Amino acid sequence: MDYLELMKELHIESKSKIILLVMDGLGGLPLTPDGKTELESAHTPNLDLLATHGICGLSTPVAPGVTPGSGPGHTALFGYDPIKYQIGRGVMEALGIGFELKSGDVAARGNFCTLDSNGLIIDRRAGRISSEIGAKLVEKLRSIKLPGVEVFVEPVKEYRFVVVMRGPGLADGLTETDPQVLGKAPLKIEALRPEAQHTADLFNEWMAQARRVLANEHPANGCNLRGIAQDPGLPKMEEIYGWKAAAIATYPMYRGIARLVGMDVLPTGDTIASEVETLKAHWEKYDFFFFHVKKTDSYGEDGNFEGRVHIIEETDALLPEILALKPDVILITGDHSTPAKLKSHSWHELPVLLWANDICPDDVKSFGERACMHGGLGHLRHVDLLPLAMGYAGRLTKFGA
Amino acid sequence: MDYLELMKELHIESKSKIILLVMDGLGGLPLTPDGKTELESAHTPNLDLLATHGICGLSTPVAPGVTPGSGPGHTALFGYDPIKYQIGRGVMEALGIGFELKSGDVAARGNFCTLDSNGLIIDRRAGRISSEIGAKLVEKLRSIKLPGVEVFVEPVKEYRFVVVMRGPGLADGLTETDPQVLGKAPLKIEALRPEAQHTADLFNEWMAQARRVLANEHPANGCNLRGIAQDPGLPKMEEIYGWKAAAIATYPMYRGIARLVGMDVLPTGDTIASEVETLKAHWEKYDFFFFHVKKTDSYGEDGNFEGRVHIIEETDALLPEILALKPDVILITGDHSTPAKLKSHSWHELPVLLWANDICPDDVKSFGERACMHGGLGHLRHVDLLPLAMGYAGRLTKFGA
Repeated sequence: MDYLELMKELHIESKSKIILLVMDGLGGLPLTPDGKTELESAHTPNLDLLATHGICGLSTPVAPGVTPGSGPGHTALFGYDPIKYQIGRGVMEALGIGFELKSGDVAARGNFCTLDSNGLIIDRRAGRISSEIGAKLVEKLRSIKLPGVEVFVEPVKEYRFVVVMRGPGLADGLTETDPQVLGKAPLKIEALRPEAQHTADLFNEWMAQARRVLANEHPANGCNLRGIAQDPGLPKMEEIYGWKAAAIATYPMYRGIARLVGMDVLPTGDTIASEVETLKAHWEKYDFFFFHVKKTDSYGEDGNFEGRVHIIEETDALLPEILALKPDVILITGDHSTPAKLKSHSWHELPVLLWANDICPDDVKSFGERACMHGGLGHLRHVDLLPLAMGYAGRLTKFGA
Repeated sequence: MDYLELMKELHIESKSKIILLVMDGLGGLPLTPDGKTELESAHTPNLDLLATHGICGLSTPVAPGVTPGSGPGHTALFGYDPIKYQIGRGVMEALGIGFELKSGDVAARGNFCTLDSNGLIIDRRAGRISSEIGAKLVEKLRSIKLPGVEVFVEPVKEYRFVVVMRGPGLADGLTETDPQVLGKAPLKIEALRPEAQHTADLFNEWMAQARRVLANEHPANGCNLRGIAQDPGLPKMEEIYGWKAAAIATYPMYRGIARLVGMDVLPTGDTIASEVETLKAHWEKYDFFFFHVKKTDSYGEDGNFEGRVHIIEETDALLPEILALKPDVILITGDHSTPAKLKSHSWHELPVLLWANDICPDDVKSFGERACMHGGLGHLRHVDLLPLAMGYAGRLTKFGA
C-alpha cells in the first residue's frame, strides 16, 4: 500500500530539512561466491560513520523478484505505489531527452524500422542507424502537420525518437504499432477507450504521413510508435508532504520524473561535486532535496565493477560537505540494484541508511549489503522510506487521539 | 497483496528450472526451553551447505498468528493470496481421497451421525464407526438418485465421506446441515445466492433420501453435510508464471491442490526416494517442480519428534541427487509449522532457504529456525516466495521503463 492519503492528512509545518541521496542502481553483487559487492568493496569512511550513528536496512523497490525500470524505482522512492502510479514508456522517453511535457501532452516512443516493398517490417531497428542519420530523419518528420494539434518530433539516440502531440481533447489509452515480429506491417493504432479515439485517429494520420515522408530513405524507410502515453498526473509532493521540494540530477530523465511529482528542478553541472554546489546554493529555499547520482547505474549496466566502486567513493568523499549543511534527516539508498555482475537492473533488495536525531542506532557499522541484512530497519519497501523520513523530520502530527 | 497480475504481465520465456521443495509442516519447536527444534536437531549437511551458499529467512504462511490448513498453506506457497483464493472443505475432502473433480462439480464433506427417535442429533460422529462400516453405509447411499445430476458418494475414513454432484447449472454458496450442537435436527440447506437455489434443492432432496436409506442403521442412522463447495477456479500457473509445472507428491490431497492450479501431477511411489526418481525421469519436460514431502507433517501431528528428525535427515540425504540435476533455483520450506510439541499445525513462521546463482549470500551456515532468524531474506510471506524465485530464475522482465 502507499501512504499518500495518510501523509496528506498528517503532514505539518516544520523547518526541518530532508535529503534523499539516491545512488542510482546502488545494490550490487559479489563477482565470486566469496567476494564483496561494489558497496562493500568501496572505501567509505563517511557512509560507515553515518551507518554507525544511524540505522540501516534493506529495501525492495517494487515487489519481490521484480526488476524495476527507472520510473517505478523513483516513484516508489518518492512514496508513490509504483504499481498504481505508472509512467508510460513514451513519457519516460520524452523525459529522458529533457522534453518539457505539459499536462495533457501525449508522448510516444518512436523507432525507425526497415520495410520491404510490401510494407512489411524486415528490421525493427533499421540497422541501428547512427544518431546523426536519426536526427536528419527526425528533421524530415517535423514537416508532418496535423489539424488542431502541435506535433513535436525529437531525436533520442540511433534509431529512437520521440513524438509528442499537444492540443485540446487528447487522451491516452492506445495500442502500439510495433507488431514485435518481422514480416508484418506496422499495426494500426486502436483506442482502448472511447475518449482516445480522436487521438488514435491523429496518430494513425501521422503514421500514414510518416510513411510517405520516409518512403525513399534507406534503411530507415518506416517507423513504429510505442508506449503512447500522457503525463500520468501524479499528485504533487507539496500536496502530499507539505514541503517545497527540489531535485538535483545530472540526467534529464530523473529531472523529468522529479518534475512529474512537482519538484523544482535545479540547474546543475555534470559532476557530483557540482551537484553538491547546487545543493549548497539552494539550501535555504527548500525543505526536501532529491539528490541523484547517476553513474553507479551506468557503470553497472556496463559491467564496470571498479567504476561503481569509484563513484561510491567519490560520493562518500563529498558527504562531509553535504552533512555540513546540517540536514535533519538524510536517507541514502538507490532506486534499484544494478550489479556489475548482471550488467542490468535487478530485483535484489538494496541497502538503505537513515540518519536523523532521535534514532536508536543499530549495530551496523558499515554501509553494505551484508551489514544491512542485520540492520535495525529490517526489510522495507521503497514506498515506506519517505513516510519514515517524514516522521524523523518531525513533519507528521499524531494520528488519531 | 498477491502479485498474480504482475506475474502474468512480466513473465518471460526461459529455459531455467525451479524446484519448490516443500517439507510439509517443516517448522518446529524445541520440547524444552533449552532444546533444539526438529530441524535444528537433524543432521543435515546438505541443507547446511545450501544455506551457506544461499540465502535464508523466515516466512509467515497466511498472516501473523494464523494457523493454516493444508489448502491455504499451499495456495500461498504457489503465490495465491490464501485469503482471496479459498478452497472449500468439501473440495479439500474430495481432493484428499484422490477424487478427480471436474469444473462445476459441487463437493460436500459428509459425517455420519446418530439421531434419536425425534430426529435430533445425539452423536455428531455416530460413535466413530469403523472405516469398514462407513464404507458399507456409503455403498447404501449410492442408491440415491437425483434428477439431472450424477451423484458420487465416496468413503473417506471412519464416519467421514464425500458427496459430489455433477451436472449443469450447479453453484456453490450454500449453508451446512450440521447445527454443531447436540439435541437439534440437521438443518435445511439454504442458498446464499439465488443461482445456488437449484443446488440447495438437490442437496436437501439428497438429505431426505439419505435419512430414509439410513433409517434402520445403528448407530449411524443419519448424516450431515458440511463445506459444500465448487472447485474455486483458481487461475492456472501456466497463465500466471508462463511455465509448465509438475507436482510430485505421495498423498492425494497435495496432488489435488496441484491439479487445481494447473500442474501436471506425476505418478510416483510412496517414498521420498521414489519421488526423486520421478523428478529425474521428468526433469527435461517441465520448468517448475513442486516436490512434496508429507511425513514431516504426519509425524508432527503424532507428536513424534524423532520421526520428524528422521524424515528431515532422509530428505537431506537425497538432496545431492536433486542438486545433480542442476536446477537454477531451489526453494526449500514448508506449507506451515507442525511442531511435534503441539501435535498440530501451528501459526509459527518457518524457515525458508533460497539457492540460486546471482545471490548475495548471508551469514547463515545451517538450516534451522534460529539460524534463519538472522537470514538475509528477513521475514517474508509465503505469497512472496515464488515471485522471488521467478526473479532469480530470470523469468521476469523489467517492470516499467
